[in-house]
Amino acid sequence: MYDILEIIEKKCSGNELTKAEIEFAVMGYVNDEIPDYQMSSLLMAIKLKGMTDKEVIDLTDVMLHSGDVLELGFDSVDKHSTGGVGDKTTIVLAPLVGALGVKVAKMSGRGLGHTGGTIDKLESISGFETSMSLEDLKDQVSEIGVALVGQMGNLCPADKKIYALRDVSGTVGSIPLIASSIMSKKLASGASKIVIDLKVGNGALMTNIEDARELARLMVKIGNLFGRKTICVLTNMNEPLGFAVGNSLEVLESIETLKGNGPSDLNDLVINLGSLMLSLDKNMETLEAIEYVENALKNNSGYEKLLEVVKYQHGDIDKISVSNNTKEIVSPKSGYIKSINALKIGELARKLGAGRKTKDDVIDPGVGFVLHKKVSDKVEAGESLATVYYNDKIIPEADVLDCFEFSNMEVSKPTLIYEIIK
Amino acid sequence: MYDILEIIEKKCSGNELTKAEIEFAVMGYVNDEIPDYQMSSLLMAIKLKGMTDKEVIDLTDVMLHSGDVLELGFDSVDKHSTGGVGDKTTIVLAPLVGALGVKVAKMSGRGLGHTGGTIDKLESISGFETSMSLEDLKDQVSEIGVALVGQMGNLCPADKKIYALRDVSGTVGSIPLIASSIMSKKLASGASKIVIDLKVGNGALMTNIEDARELARLMVKIGNLFGRKTICVLTNMNEPLGFAVGNSLEVLESIETLKGNGPSDLNDLVINLGSLMLSLDKNMETLEAIEYVENALKNNSGYEKLLEVVKYQHGDIDKISVSNNTKEIVSPKSGYIKSINALKIGELARKLGAGRKTKDDVIDPGVGFVLHKKVSDKVEAGESLATVYYNDKIIPEADVLDCFEFSNMEVSKPTLIYEIIK
Repeated sequence: MYDILEIIEKKCSGNELTKAEIEFAVMGYVNDEIPDYQMSSLLMAIKLKGMTDKEVIDLTDVMLHSGDVLELGFDSVDKHSTGGVGDKTTIVLAPLVGALGVKVAKMSGRGLGHTGGTIDKLESISGFETSMSLEDLKDQVSEIGVALVGQMGNLCPADKKIYALRDVSGTVGSIPLIASSIMSKKLASGASKIVIDLKVGNGALMTNIEDARELARLMVKIGNLFGRKTICVLTNMNEPLGFAVGNSLEVLESIETLKGNGPSDLNDLVINLGSLMLSLDKNMETLEAIEYVENALKNNSGYEKLLEVVKYQHGDIDKISVSNNTKEIVSPKSGYIKSINALKIGELARKLGAGRKTKDDVIDPGVGFVLHKKVSDKVEAGESLATVYYNDKIIPEADVLDCFEFSNMEVSKPTLIYEIIK
Repeated sequence: MYDILEIIEKKCSGNELTKAEIEFAVMGYVNDEIPDYQMSSLLMAIKLKGMTDKEVIDLTDVMLHSGDVLELGFDSVDKHSTGGVGDKTTIVLAPLVGALGVKVAKMSGRGLGHTGGTIDKLESISGFETSMSLEDLKDQVSEIGVALVGQMGNLCPADKKIYALRDVSGTVGSIPLIASSIMSKKLASGASKIVIDLKVGNGALMTNIEDARELARLMVKIGNLFGRKTICVLTNMNEPLGFAVGNSLEVLESIETLKGNGPSDLNDLVINLGSLMLSLDKNMETLEAIEYVENALKNNSGYEKLLEVVKYQHGDIDKISVSNNTKEIVSPKSGYIKSINALKIGELARKLGAGRKTKDDVIDPGVGFVLHKKVSDKVEAGESLATVYYNDKIIPEADVLDCFEFSNMEVSKPTLIYEIIK
């Protein structure tokens, strides 16, 4: 038999754990045989001493098999984002590539954070249903190619329990733990190909490019090893993505983007990610895939697909309510926008009611921000930087202004896509 | 206010915690505001990232002041041992230096382990009382110079709670945590001078000399900084100390040692530690102190002092019961004793009933071992290596033999005292 204290000591000394030891620790924790304080001490040892690729793969495998492993019965492409402020790409991408024949059975979360998760955003469409059975999900994808649903089944309970502990024990920021957490869930949810949008920057999971690159390398290795072709894209998350931050506001921006009127950063991102999804699925050259995706944006076929999905899931696309109370945040000076702090904007959005702090908080779909300026834009004193949509909760105007840095000199447009790792 | 997750992250990044941060974490834990899993994760970060001397001193100070701090009202010398198999030095040393005018108000523990703690050993003397009030302790030391008692007051509750957690979270082996744990208790118990017997070797707290040296340096620094002159002696704990292992058996060996008939290693150790205690107390040259101590062993004055202490604490020195069931463990070959595994001997003694595994276990004072050979001794096949004293629990003879390693060539006598650090 194994002894958890010996396993902790072994990791402390920087030695490689065997798969049996990892399984003993993880499943013992899931089955309440190993207490929180031993698991958190082991997680800290892993955070500080690292894990070999073999350990990460074994940990992923153990977590993957700790619960249900879904079988979709058809090839599909999953797109995962590590999350950022204003990140509504799923809502644009799924119908966009769906219109091009890629099957997307997309499960998303609610989650805590600055704004709701993709599921919360979608629920700002009146009537839109996000919970369904696996059979219904399969039927829908077979019929219309795309489904946007909440989590289903008991996927990776080990990851769920360990993630909750990491969150409160200072062990979130560990590349091996992040890689195995993301990949075990992706593998369990049944997609045959995976594109990961790994956000880098202030307000993102990864704050520097070196760590992001290492995480990407690991996730791609794990995915491929489990037989799922995986691509990881490192993208900029220093300023919010697009203009809209908030649940209804982001859905409305997604619709505009599908109609070809999206903000240029969001537009570029969906073209890049979409073409990777398409090329993976159809085994197509990326340049050819880009043409298809650009075309689907021009001819509204992605938008048509979204209408189809919303209708199938009982939503009414004409009923997306946004608060009537608005306030313009006016620029105190002329110049160029040097930076927009995504993290701060996200926190302010949560304060307005757009996100949850605890899982019992209720989201207000109609509140948030619409930015009017992005980094590198020229601004005149008195021009509006952003519109705040609010209801019962208010925030000081100065806090919003604090998110903006100005420069007297021209500022270059930030790079959107740093690297593609496959 | 402080945030425990920020404190954990700060330590993870290898930064120095402020005293206020350390106090927030430790006292928060003591007051049940910080849960086990956050404390164990912080302890693991400390174990792997270390602490600066300033942090260790601050931690000691916080733990010291988490409970009662005893004021004895007179100068006294404390001797602390980090614990080893067959370690009965306190029972010899306290009366020995007491006979030379050194005041010793010695508080000892019960503890879990191979054999009982000093208090358990003393309780194998029929009637011997080890619990008394602080006033009675002061009176006894004023009258006869020496008292041997159990823990009193609520000393260092923070250390108690943290130590219990370290024990089950793989965070025992951390030099900063060990140093602050030992020193906070020593400082709280009121002695003005401290001699620490730091055991090194298989079956001891420290298994290598480099770590032991670092721990000693830290403890001496802490002690001196808090105004208590502190000396640390690094001693060998690869084989059991003396011949006897077990509660009554060790008391009997202590008595023989005070009468000048002790095993040579125990005898050497008490002369060394005793002379350090004496020289500290009387500000005397060590060589002169050694003469005094040797004399006290020769003229039985240490033994007389022990009789005085036992009588004062209501014990009957003639009633120390040892089991009548004995078994000789016979050497299977001729040669020299190369090693005697102290750790294994200790574990076997516990199996016989000499020690506790959980705090509810009841100790059998009459069981244990008396070795007849020590490392470097010559042995003939058929000669007895050890006598096992047992009652209801038995152990396989082969397990005892397993503790001994033999050599055909002569083996040099192991060094007893490695270093003295002051």
